[in-house]
Amino acid sequence: MHQETRKLLTIVTESALETELCDELTRLGAGGYTVTDARGRGSRGVRDAGWASSGNIRIEVICDARVADRIAAHLRDRYYSDYAMILYLSDVSVLRPEKF
Amino acid sequence: MHQETRKLLTIVTESALETELCDELTRLGAGGYTVTDARGRGSRGVRDAGWASSGNIRIEVICDARVADRIAAHLRDRYYSDYAMILYLSDVSVLRPEKF
Amino acid sequence: MHQETRKLLTIVTESALETELCDELTRLGAGGYTVTDARGRGSRGVRDAGWASSGNIRIEVICDARVADRIAAHLRDRYYSDYAMILYLSDVSVLRPEKF
Repeated sequence: MHQETRKLLTIVTESALETELCDELTRLGAGGYTVTDARGRGSRGVRDAGWASSGNIRIEVICDARVADRIAAHLRDRYYSDYAMILYLSDVSVLRPEKF
Repeated sequence: MHQETRKLLTIVTESALETELCDELTRLGAGGYTVTDARGRGSRGVRDAGWASSGNIRIEVICDARVADRIAAHLRDRYYSDYAMILYLSDVSVLRPEKF
Repeated sequence: MHQETRKLLTIVTESALETELCDELTRLGAGGYTVTDARGRGSRGVRDAGWASSGNIRIEVICDARVADRIAAHLRDRYYSDYAMILYLSDVSVLRPEKF
C-alpha cells in the first residue's frame, strides 16, 4: 500500500471564523480540510484567559510541513490575539489507493 | 498503565456510505469504529476533481496494521473511483484499564 | 515556530457522562478539552460485550503524560466497569504562536 508521510494540523477555534478561515486555508496551500462541530474549554492563546463555548469548530488539514508553518504564521498574525485557538501537529501516513 | 500500540485509521468520505461501510468494517476485522459528522473540501481520489460538501463523515478505526491494509484495499476496490475519500493512518497507544 | 511535544488523550464514551467527566478532567489537571458528538460500535471495556450507540462523545485532551496517567486511572476506577469506553494516546506538537 502506497503511503505518504504528511502533517496533520488540527485547529480548534471559534465557529464564527469558519468561513473566513477555510477560504484562507485553501489560499495558503491546503489541498483540503475537514471541519467538525465541537465544544469545550481551554486557555485562550496569548491572553491565557479561560474560555468555554459550545460554538467551537475542529478543523483538520493534511499538508506538508511548509504549508503547516505558513498556516500557523497566518493564524498567529490575524487571529491569535483576539480569538480562542489551539493548534497542534501530528504525523500521519496518507494512503493513496490509486497507487496501491 | 498497560498500553498497546495500534493503528488509528481515519476515513473521511461521503455520508451516504455510512451504513454500508460500517457494516463492512466489522466484517473486515475492525473491533469497533467511531463516526462523526463533518464537512469540508478536498481533491477527489483518483479523479482529483474538487469536491465540497456538508454531507461528509469522519470514521475512526483502531486496529492492527493487517486489518488497516485489508480495509484500505477494500475501499480502493469498491468505492475509491466513485466517491470522495481520504484515508490516513497514525500510531496510537491504546490504554487498557482492565490491565492497569 | 515554537513547538511543545505533548500527549493527545482521546476518550470515546457514552454521552451521558459528558458533564461529570468534563468537570473531572479540569480537576485532574487538564488545561482544556474538546468534545464532539459521535456514534459507533465497540467492545465494552472489561466486559467485552458489544455496544452500539448514537449517543457517544469523543473527548480530546492535550496534556502531559503525568496528567494523562492520572485521568486514565480515574476513569478506570470510576467508570470503566459500567460504561462503554475506549482511551488512546498519541504524540502531538502543540504550536505556540505567542512564542513563534
